[in-house]
Amino acid sequence: MSLTRAQLAQQIIEAGRFLYGRGWSPATSSNYSARLSPREALLTVSGKHKGQLGEEDVLVTDMAGNSLEPGKKPSAETLLHTQLYSWKAEIGAVLHTHSVNATVLSRLTLSDSLVFADYELQKAFAGITTHECQVCVPIFDNDQDIARLAGRVQPWLDEHSDCVGYLIRGHGLYTWGATMSDALRQVEAFEFLFDCELQMRALQGR
Amino acid sequence: MSLTRAQLAQQIIEAGRFLYGRGWSPATSSNYSARLSPREALLTVSGKHKGQLGEEDVLVTDMAGNSLEPGKKPSAETLLHTQLYSWKAEIGAVLHTHSVNATVLSRLTLSDSLVFADYELQKAFAGITTHECQVCVPIFDNDQDIARLAGRVQPWLDEHSDCVGYLIRGHGLYTWGATMSDALRQVEAFEFLFDCELQMRALQGR
Amino acid sequence: MSLTRAQLAQQIIEAGRFLYGRGWSPATSSNYSARLSPREALLTVSGKHKGQLGEEDVLVTDMAGNSLEPGKKPSAETLLHTQLYSWKAEIGAVLHTHSVNATVLSRLTLSDSLVFADYELQKAFAGITTHECQVCVPIFDNDQDIARLAGRVQPWLDEHSDCVGYLIRGHGLYTWGATMSDALRQVEAFEFLFDCELQMRALQGR
Amino acid sequence: MSLTRAQLAQQIIEAGRFLYGRGWSPATSSNYSARLSPREALLTVSGKHKGQLGEEDVLVTDMAGNSLEPGKKPSAETLLHTQLYSWKAEIGAVLHTHSVNATVLSRLTLSDSLVFADYELQKAFAGITTHECQVCVPIFDNDQDIARLAGRVQPWLDEHSDCVGYLIRGHGLYTWGATMSDALRQVEAFEFLFDCELQMRALQGR
Repeated sequence: MSLTRAQLAQQIIEAGRFLYGRGWSPATSSNYSARLSPREALLTVSGKHKGQLGEEDVLVTDMAGNSLEPGKKPSAETLLHTQLYSWKAEIGAVLHTHSVNATVLSRLTLSDSLVFADYELQKAFAGITTHECQVCVPIFDNDQDIARLAGRVQPWLDEHSDCVGYLIRGHGLYTWGATMSDALRQVEAFEFLFDCELQMRALQGR
Repeated sequence: MSLTRAQLAQQIIEAGRFLYGRGWSPATSSNYSARLSPREALLTVSGKHKGQLGEEDVLVTDMAGNSLEPGKKPSAETLLHTQLYSWKAEIGAVLHTHSVNATVLSRLTLSDSLVFADYELQKAFAGITTHECQVCVPIFDNDQDIARLAGRVQPWLDEHSDCVGYLIRGHGLYTWGATMSDALRQVEAFEFLFDCELQMRALQGR
Repeated sequence: MSLTRAQLAQQIIEAGRFLYGRGWSPATSSNYSARLSPREALLTVSGKHKGQLGEEDVLVTDMAGNSLEPGKKPSAETLLHTQLYSWKAEIGAVLHTHSVNATVLSRLTLSDSLVFADYELQKAFAGITTHECQVCVPIFDNDQDIARLAGRVQPWLDEHSDCVGYLIRGHGLYTWGATMSDALRQVEAFEFLFDCELQMRALQGR
Repeated sequence: MSLTRAQLAQQIIEAGRFLYGRGWSPATSSNYSARLSPREALLTVSGKHKGQLGEEDVLVTDMAGNSLEPGKKPSAETLLHTQLYSWKAEIGAVLHTHSVNATVLSRLTLSDSLVFADYELQKAFAGITTHECQVCVPIFDNDQDIARLAGRVQPWLDEHSDCVGYLIRGHGLYTWGATMSDALRQVEAFEFLFDCELQMRALQGR
């Protein structure tokens, strides 16, 4: 956690270039963050092209999601980031992405969670060492009132200390890691599994 | 609106590189424009590779779609661009793209419009602030007589001041924005929604 | 037709880089050619990685498909190229590609041709000026005996002077143009239409 | 087989960049190797980003899969590589990839093998000269006990000297070649065929 603000900003900029390039952060959607100190997070500001972020496109917030940089407007979803840093001290980076597959799968799944099983790639998630387990991903209904949405996420986190990510219906994915590269690995793993699951549903029984 | 012709030409060239690279302007299809002055538009000439546009591949027209540069042939669809600049003074750029998804979705939809609802990404369109609304996209039948096609588009524009884009059946998308980057953001948002909608249709009930 | 061998070789190398990059010439499949003189063609040699062609990876043949460069082995399908140069004097380049979509569509279509109609992109083919026409693409069964296959293609060409390309079942596409860029534009247009057609079939009735 | 360790390491690094770029080695999955000498293999170490391998991310093992470089941990699946080098002296490179299509197809196929027929691209596999044959690809159930999994693979190899690759269910592909470029060509050919097969299944009967 000893990286400087400039180093973390660079990680966020590069994460954006990668995630936008993969089509997972289109049309100024998504937001990314890194823990700057025990009580501060570095977040993307609102409404920027995620493949073209600059050093000025991040700002520091406290853990209640308040901007500590006058004149910069944090993303509307800041609270969903800081909530995660407060939940676990070992989380160093949080990525919210917005892919077609996450959107479609979260809308087509009417129940309140998705379960992945028997995929070798489940081992890409922190703490998972075999395909012979289940990864449960909750799906929360979308809400423009972010405090209210965070209030629905918190009980799930409290009860599932092994949670590796969650979906917001019609909106996208939240996942995280000790480092930015851990969080990016988890985004890749989720997108792989979403793609598999959609193809499995399309083909099963054919 | 104080950008020079050279600057706007450069924006059109870069838009073409991006849109061609994404597969949304294949095989010399598509045309792009920017407002040069209250009564002039800068448009792509007819029949060029959209990923390899040069400075000489644009021309100035008046708002009736007439070329103001002797010897250069404007795109057949010029009138569909200038119609939009005349409709709203705040429009600074118009993009017509030609993706597989726009083509397929406009052909498969037999009614005269598509409606998007409950997608967080609807917020990428100008004037939209929540997923709890509907974005209605009209679909016009294709026509090689562009004046006749423009004549069918005009009543829709007159009655829907909040229109953010439209489809021509089997042909592609028209969308726009105050700036080129606004128009590009709307293309990305539309393509995201087209992709979602096609996947939703394929998977619903499976 | 006044381009030198070196210039045409460069066009073939760049076409390969593009077509391989798009996934339309995988695993050393495909072959490309350009007319060098009224009675000579420049063709890719057998079995090379199409995204990494070098100047030495082309050879000159006569119009019967015989190598005019001792020690270099022409592609097994040379005769399918030279047949086209003999068919029409205005053809300057021939591209044979091998995409997933061409393979799947040619296998799923049990009749001996595909017909495209009502697509604006049909206008990307030489001689087509409206979507209100039909583009008919014959499908020939695959055959390792290329002379026999060419013997089945010839009557179709003789009877359809407006032919813009054909498919070999489970194998790929042949298309052509006055110049290399014309042939590339036709490959893009065919791949666009194949993609549309497959999606239309998957979704129709859903 | 006279390439140096540095040259083979470079081939592995470049293979990783290519395979990751294609989406076939996501989220630190996959492992690659090359034969260094009759009794030694050079393999990727465990858990690295496959698009960003460095020279230090490979290690030498003996043919029983034991690390010959103290302090470096070989991939858990090392034995599946060395098993192949022991099986055939002419194998110079082994690639294990982990694509969505390989994962989905191996899960949807309930029988213990896939058969490809009538695809021209079958000719990309070593020893195949016509589409008029069948390529049989066995599918083994996934197992975290790699010695036990290798024990199930061995009898198949012993009985099928023409085997060009195999699948592990929900996990990925193993294929190989005399050189790294031969192995890469076979990965491309398999991925092409997996894609075709999934599309054929989705569309058949529509």
